[in-house]
Amino acid sequence: MNVAIVGASGFTGLELIKIIHEHPNFRLKEVATTTGDLSIDTLHPALKDVVIGSVETVDLHQIGQSCDLVFLAVPHKTAMELVKTLTQYDIKIVDLSADYRLERDTYEAHYCPHIDPDNIDQAVYGLPELYRDEIRSAQLVANPGCYPTSAILALAPFARYMKKDTPIFVDAKSGVSGAGKKCVESTHFVTINDNMFAYNPLGHRHGPEIAEKLKLLDAASTKVHFVPHLVPITRGMLTSVYIELDQTIDAASVLKEYYKDEAFVRVRQEPVTMKQVAGTNFCDIYVKQDGETLFISSAIDNLLRGASSQAVANANLMCGFDEKLGIPTIAYVP
Amino acid sequence: MNVAIVGASGFTGLELIKIIHEHPNFRLKEVATTTGDLSIDTLHPALKDVVIGSVETVDLHQIGQSCDLVFLAVPHKTAMELVKTLTQYDIKIVDLSADYRLERDTYEAHYCPHIDPDNIDQAVYGLPELYRDEIRSAQLVANPGCYPTSAILALAPFARYMKKDTPIFVDAKSGVSGAGKKCVESTHFVTINDNMFAYNPLGHRHGPEIAEKLKLLDAASTKVHFVPHLVPITRGMLTSVYIELDQTIDAASVLKEYYKDEAFVRVRQEPVTMKQVAGTNFCDIYVKQDGETLFISSAIDNLLRGASSQAVANANLMCGFDEKLGIPTIAYVP
Amino acid sequence: MNVAIVGASGFTGLELIKIIHEHPNFRLKEVATTTGDLSIDTLHPALKDVVIGSVETVDLHQIGQSCDLVFLAVPHKTAMELVKTLTQYDIKIVDLSADYRLERDTYEAHYCPHIDPDNIDQAVYGLPELYRDEIRSAQLVANPGCYPTSAILALAPFARYMKKDTPIFVDAKSGVSGAGKKCVESTHFVTINDNMFAYNPLGHRHGPEIAEKLKLLDAASTKVHFVPHLVPITRGMLTSVYIELDQTIDAASVLKEYYKDEAFVRVRQEPVTMKQVAGTNFCDIYVKQDGETLFISSAIDNLLRGASSQAVANANLMCGFDEKLGIPTIAYVP
Amino acid sequence: MNVAIVGASGFTGLELIKIIHEHPNFRLKEVATTTGDLSIDTLHPALKDVVIGSVETVDLHQIGQSCDLVFLAVPHKTAMELVKTLTQYDIKIVDLSADYRLERDTYEAHYCPHIDPDNIDQAVYGLPELYRDEIRSAQLVANPGCYPTSAILALAPFARYMKKDTPIFVDAKSGVSGAGKKCVESTHFVTINDNMFAYNPLGHRHGPEIAEKLKLLDAASTKVHFVPHLVPITRGMLTSVYIELDQTIDAASVLKEYYKDEAFVRVRQEPVTMKQVAGTNFCDIYVKQDGETLFISSAIDNLLRGASSQAVANANLMCGFDEKLGIPTIAYVP
Repeated sequence: MNVAIVGASGFTGLELIKIIHEHPNFRLKEVATTTGDLSIDTLHPALKDVVIGSVETVDLHQIGQSCDLVFLAVPHKTAMELVKTLTQYDIKIVDLSADYRLERDTYEAHYCPHIDPDNIDQAVYGLPELYRDEIRSAQLVANPGCYPTSAILALAPFARYMKKDTPIFVDAKSGVSGAGKKCVESTHFVTINDNMFAYNPLGHRHGPEIAEKLKLLDAASTKVHFVPHLVPITRGMLTSVYIELDQTIDAASVLKEYYKDEAFVRVRQEPVTMKQVAGTNFCDIYVKQDGETLFISSAIDNLLRGASSQAVANANLMCGFDEKLGIPTIAYVP
Repeated sequence: MNVAIVGASGFTGLELIKIIHEHPNFRLKEVATTTGDLSIDTLHPALKDVVIGSVETVDLHQIGQSCDLVFLAVPHKTAMELVKTLTQYDIKIVDLSADYRLERDTYEAHYCPHIDPDNIDQAVYGLPELYRDEIRSAQLVANPGCYPTSAILALAPFARYMKKDTPIFVDAKSGVSGAGKKCVESTHFVTINDNMFAYNPLGHRHGPEIAEKLKLLDAASTKVHFVPHLVPITRGMLTSVYIELDQTIDAASVLKEYYKDEAFVRVRQEPVTMKQVAGTNFCDIYVKQDGETLFISSAIDNLLRGASSQAVANANLMCGFDEKLGIPTIAYVP
Repeated sequence: MNVAIVGASGFTGLELIKIIHEHPNFRLKEVATTTGDLSIDTLHPALKDVVIGSVETVDLHQIGQSCDLVFLAVPHKTAMELVKTLTQYDIKIVDLSADYRLERDTYEAHYCPHIDPDNIDQAVYGLPELYRDEIRSAQLVANPGCYPTSAILALAPFARYMKKDTPIFVDAKSGVSGAGKKCVESTHFVTINDNMFAYNPLGHRHGPEIAEKLKLLDAASTKVHFVPHLVPITRGMLTSVYIELDQTIDAASVLKEYYKDEAFVRVRQEPVTMKQVAGTNFCDIYVKQDGETLFISSAIDNLLRGASSQAVANANLMCGFDEKLGIPTIAYVP
Repeated sequence: MNVAIVGASGFTGLELIKIIHEHPNFRLKEVATTTGDLSIDTLHPALKDVVIGSVETVDLHQIGQSCDLVFLAVPHKTAMELVKTLTQYDIKIVDLSADYRLERDTYEAHYCPHIDPDNIDQAVYGLPELYRDEIRSAQLVANPGCYPTSAILALAPFARYMKKDTPIFVDAKSGVSGAGKKCVESTHFVTINDNMFAYNPLGHRHGPEIAEKLKLLDAASTKVHFVPHLVPITRGMLTSVYIELDQTIDAASVLKEYYKDEAFVRVRQEPVTMKQVAGTNFCDIYVKQDGETLFISSAIDNLLRGASSQAVANANLMCGFDEKLGIPTIAYVP
């Protein structure tokens, strides 16, 4: 199948190129950025002699005509402009931005006015563990945010056991690649090295995304209090979730049972680590309980399970392939 | 005043040497380790040409006779053996171990049998913001743990506003120097670099220490759920506290008012960072509220405010000096 | 083909497992360590749900009978004991230790007495760019050291243009994984983080290895002065070579021409970086000249091109496969 | 004495503020930046509650009238514009830029046209070990570059023993703070973390600075081949120098003897490390010889001995104080 990547210059674009290049059923047909007019290995020098090809400016008609599948790795707002046009073609779309993840009201409260509201309802939220069947038949998949991926997978098994309207504390720590390639004070090496700090506490836009998806799960509470942090690590995300239950359960067993058939969730007996998932699509999860109080710790690679490899897993489902086809599983360890 | 440091080979011992060396009123009289028989700059090569002197084996009688003040930077259990003898001399003692921090029952439940229970009652918990007057007249000060220092200072202003028996979630992140100098898998560079993970979740011994001190503060809840993490940083500690209140307050004002006369607590308007306190005795605190739910973030240098500089501030008070004398305030920034 | 890995617990053992697991023509038959008796994912938890299998104690007869190929990822001295026995079986051997890299005299001067001198002459030095044909027909390949790999590939194109007996300065910087898994002061996170230092300057055993191989290349000089450094990086190696030539050449063209047919050497127009080769078998090389003085900079992944992926490339050649089969080329970037 | 700092927003400006604040004889009178109009702790939040004062725009007349001493921590080219005016006042000037370090020809060949050539001859190169007496009587001191400081101090003891016109290879590694506060791709955390690379090899402007100072030392060679690298460290610089001598000397003794009376050079018996000098004005030096070939390794804090603390040491000399007054000596260890 012919594949296009729009927005190939960022970190998630690079990860998409890497995965598609190795994928047995996908062929990299179009790689596009705003400026175009260079080669892939000029854009990403690490790919020299590995991925050969040119980077063009975005031509939606060309993509719509020649490709079966397109990944949009562009900022929110830009994405919906592209989707609005692309849905007119016979092409499957995985949008890595926030534009189709939320209900319209929630979206507009936290982002900006939506110019393509009709497609919001058509879009499927691309978390295979929760929406696998819907993804299979979708034309448009809204790939989840990195923080919501790690938080929702941690919470889902316990959603119905929570005390009603109990506060859900999500203390998440992200590698700096999550902040993107832009060079600003908060991504300067000197700011980050030997340092750690919260940002946007209780105000980050991924909080409502987590809450909305919990509501769809009929969770006993959706009162998410979300605090993200930056840590001096390039890639990876470690998310701590603290909740109270309204009944005594064997949390470890509930967790294990919930994910027993999932290929990309690994339930751990020891606290999870960022490195054991770096470079992979795995979400590792660990739970520890103190009576009816739970600490749940989940780890993902923010660029892969939190973006690009999850996008390709969704694409596999949309195209009728095995979800695991071409998805990286071998960690960057040591 | 003549000062002894027992346990000079570790990180907190090194920090004590550095501070005492620069202190206007303290003179480094005895520096002791288990093995002794070397020079200070052989033990700590960074101090070459700066701190001149010899390191001896521990001789309690010699210390008791010749010194006015002793810092014990030795492991728990060893400390109480030394204290039991040293209290027989006319010498002030700051113990950096856990041995006199807790009530006997709590101590023995989490550490080991106590061989010097009588002195537990005499010991004052060395958190100046809470026990300044008692410290001034103490012979024996139990220097707080690093995690409890950061957590209690974050919680104290809100202790009486908390919902009764509400869970108190403490998600703390520590630099690796907190794990000490021992070379084990969890301190190997390859384990730590690009990695982050919880350890001893809901089971670390600093949890009961926090709870016990909250009880003494008449806090509305003492249900502490404590999860520490290691981060790829040498020094520093960032502690997130999540609580619910039983009334609406202006949390930022409460925090500011509570610490308005404190020299070593800085209330911040922006989320605190580890680097802005590294190298200092400051505890920086920030609070953000969402109605009656609070996120409190505190940062300390785990080796200084979490150990050695707090120990010297306590010693200043015990000796009748200005608490601020010789205490480091200029951060290791950038 | 059935493959055995002896010494599976270290970093190079782990990398071998990862590569063999993905390799189309090799099947992981035996994985052995000194202690045995555990599963692969207990030994390397990152491989959970990916590589399934058990780890046994070393049984040379079993390996010799059931496997076509064995990788020895054990310390020097141990390796020769194994090789001496294994060569009696019909099995190809790639030894990652130093035991068969050097002529006997050089080896014994820098390591220890050799108990299997006969096989030294049979062993081929596993640097495909220099000894591809010999590797193809070898039973025993001595996989090069990481520093020599990076230094020799940097020097080879210029070996015959050097000033006679000119000093060859090799200033190399290695990630800490090169020091192995052992937990000692020099691998403690606190020692390494924010730090950098030379070790064994002008005395490291890889110096003679470089010199000896230059002699075999008929280099105009073999006066290697080698200084390795540790840097706060997990994996990667950056090697600076400084030499003087006895004639004016276009160094960039010579370099490009020399490696024009090589799949795993990338000649760069900009200074090479560690990250662009991390995770791959590439050696990236850059040269800058100032008249007849050259600075040559080469970068490899110390665990892959400096050990495990080069070992598998050698095995490919020994087995008659394409050298590139199953060899990683996609870098750990970002 | 009243002191002004012009260019207070950068890293070296911050270090100057920290040192002057603690200095017994200097009083921070004027702190200026291009924009002004804020407080010191807004500019550098780590200094909150420590250094109180306001930051103004640059007013040379005001500074010239009210201050005895000014530090210029501004870019080259800007510095000479300020110096040209300031020398008309009765004020001592320490310029941290490159503008007065070099002879006019060398300067203009590597930087830009010089608008204040007359003052070049008046300026003294601020390396106290070489020019202490001249610094004492100077009005204008040109503070050396960080790379030249570490390289010249390594080379000076051996300058006269070198083989005539032998190449001098300087392979230097700098922490990222040396690249300044500007946010560009090469200072992005993701670019630097787990990475290392040369930049401007054989072309960096500090090469001619080293060469020119060697000429003034009557060195047997001035053929400097200089290659700087960036390493994933915030502060520190490690410089390897490789030379050949024309005679056999006992290099360790020569080094020790040369610096035997120097307070800020520490000759080490073990390879020097970046951390042991971080936070101090020390230059640690180690030498290892192989016959007549030397490896010299020197370490400094790039922001202190490579800029701000050396500037204050120079100011001490210019003002008739003890060179060591208020100069930091206690390293950021651990």
